[in-house]
Amino acid sequence: MAVYTDISDEDLDFLESEYPIGEILSCKGIAEGVENSNFLLHTEKSHFILTIYEKRVREQDLPFFLGLMEHLADQNFVSPRPILNLAGKTLTTLAGKPAAIIEFLEGRSIRRISAQHCFQLGEALAKLHIAAEGFSLKRENSLTLENWRPLFNACVNDNENTKSVPPVELEEVREEITHLEKHWPSDLPSGVIHADLFPDNIFFLNDRVSGVIDYYFACNDFLAYDVAVCLNAWCFESDASFNITKARKLLQGYQAVRKMTDREFETLPLLCQGAALRFYLTRLYDWINQVEGALVKPKNPFEYLRKIRFHKDVKSVSAYGID
Amino acid sequence: MAVYTDISDEDLDFLESEYPIGEILSCKGIAEGVENSNFLLHTEKSHFILTIYEKRVREQDLPFFLGLMEHLADQNFVSPRPILNLAGKTLTTLAGKPAAIIEFLEGRSIRRISAQHCFQLGEALAKLHIAAEGFSLKRENSLTLENWRPLFNACVNDNENTKSVPPVELEEVREEITHLEKHWPSDLPSGVIHADLFPDNIFFLNDRVSGVIDYYFACNDFLAYDVAVCLNAWCFESDASFNITKARKLLQGYQAVRKMTDREFETLPLLCQGAALRFYLTRLYDWINQVEGALVKPKNPFEYLRKIRFHKDVKSVSAYGID
Repeated sequence: MAVYTDISDEDLDFLESEYPIGEILSCKGIAEGVENSNFLLHTEKSHFILTIYEKRVREQDLPFFLGLMEHLADQNFVSPRPILNLAGKTLTTLAGKPAAIIEFLEGRSIRRISAQHCFQLGEALAKLHIAAEGFSLKRENSLTLENWRPLFNACVNDNENTKSVPPVELEEVREEITHLEKHWPSDLPSGVIHADLFPDNIFFLNDRVSGVIDYYFACNDFLAYDVAVCLNAWCFESDASFNITKARKLLQGYQAVRKMTDREFETLPLLCQGAALRFYLTRLYDWINQVEGALVKPKNPFEYLRKIRFHKDVKSVSAYGID
Repeated sequence: MAVYTDISDEDLDFLESEYPIGEILSCKGIAEGVENSNFLLHTEKSHFILTIYEKRVREQDLPFFLGLMEHLADQNFVSPRPILNLAGKTLTTLAGKPAAIIEFLEGRSIRRISAQHCFQLGEALAKLHIAAEGFSLKRENSLTLENWRPLFNACVNDNENTKSVPPVELEEVREEITHLEKHWPSDLPSGVIHADLFPDNIFFLNDRVSGVIDYYFACNDFLAYDVAVCLNAWCFESDASFNITKARKLLQGYQAVRKMTDREFETLPLLCQGAALRFYLTRLYDWINQVEGALVKPKNPFEYLRKIRFHKDVKSVSAYGID
């Protein structure tokens, strides 16, 4: 939930004059995204999402994010398309902040995830990877291998609140970072990845994928790392058990569109550990830096330590339902 | 901004089965209202607002609020109409809380208020008063004369934080309450009033009033008290000066639909003081009970003390632009 910026009448007049969207009939702040302010614009022509980029998104990354969405939409991938203003740009300035108007995609993110959803997720992810080929801009992953130790150190050195995390848990994470630093692969197929494809970020309509949204962590990295993020986000049940049927379906869906290499399969348990570590660390950071009384309660990072442990115990990819 | 309740897939399935709204294509939490959780439902048939009533709304008042909206819509007033479920009820239970689905009205609330908007506001308010005649349910105003002193005492007796309010200011308010207790009228035309008709709660489309929303303070009280609430909410500039042109237009718009009595005009300065006191006190309460770090910063009550002072100095209704 996040609406940090107030939109004035003048702002809306400005948008009407800058973008070929028609008269704005209503503008409602929506409670989506934790990084930006989002508004649902209903105009005489259509519906749009107006996003105002707040501090946590680096302005120099915006051409990558918006360009990627445009490129994906051009390739008929189900990405919302940023709307060009009369100057032919996707990015504008509103209330002194960068802003963009983006196509509204119908559909609902799902909570009750079935194996069939995981198959469709896998297909969509592989389609995204293929559609992104040929996109000319690059962006490094700022939450991968070389960032994990500094982020961990910033958590444990800095803050009184680390005390709420058992020292033995932090020691386990420190060892995991060392382990991954030693064994992290460097020889995998790479490309543009979504890097945050949680259930919130896929819309389904009539049981088909109708949209993939929120590209604000997208970057260049191993394609199979994106698969690992999804295995963690979609295939664990709320009791922390791993659902091998969902994993199998996810991988089958992915492979129906793009065949994974042997090396990708071989490194998958390691990639899953790294992907789990990345979310463990950002949750840990938000956990120990939480604001007393804030409406949004940070998520406990421990869930992701359990996922790390699961993947560490994996002996072969058969654990993911693959023969 | 407020979305306190999470909607599950099962909740949406339930709504689809209970209400004749068609398939739900999307459901987005919207950042409107501070008392309830609101969602914009887009279905294959239309758009709707789904409201889940949180703690601050008393459940026994909901039949009054929803019934009033239905009655007003029946009278062709621009109130959103609550949707009847298959059992013919407007109220249901979702996520263990009372909930209703309400018609979506196009239009935008305005920030840049003109005298012409005030005229239209006046017309709309009088139309509401007339349209509400014949509504059979009653609800007492729980924020009027007899509630002011208890609310004030709850503020000043209870809380460390009252220290942030100058004692001389609190003394002035205490005297004002005594003054109003002595002089508050009892012989004015009464009926159902909106009681919270701030600019946020009126939508305009093509410079005409397209909707009046948020009936969750509506009650039975003096009709002219509603006029007083609007004079306070619409006719002061951000520098605290009173805009007599806007006031004149508001009263002209109101009288174009319903003539005010001499007694209503005579008591208007007093009603305006009472209306300003009511918002002063609830703001004071929220101010001293504010949650450290909460996203929504309470509004400083002092603005409303300045409004009380303005109306105390008024010698005749000519101060409101009326001859």
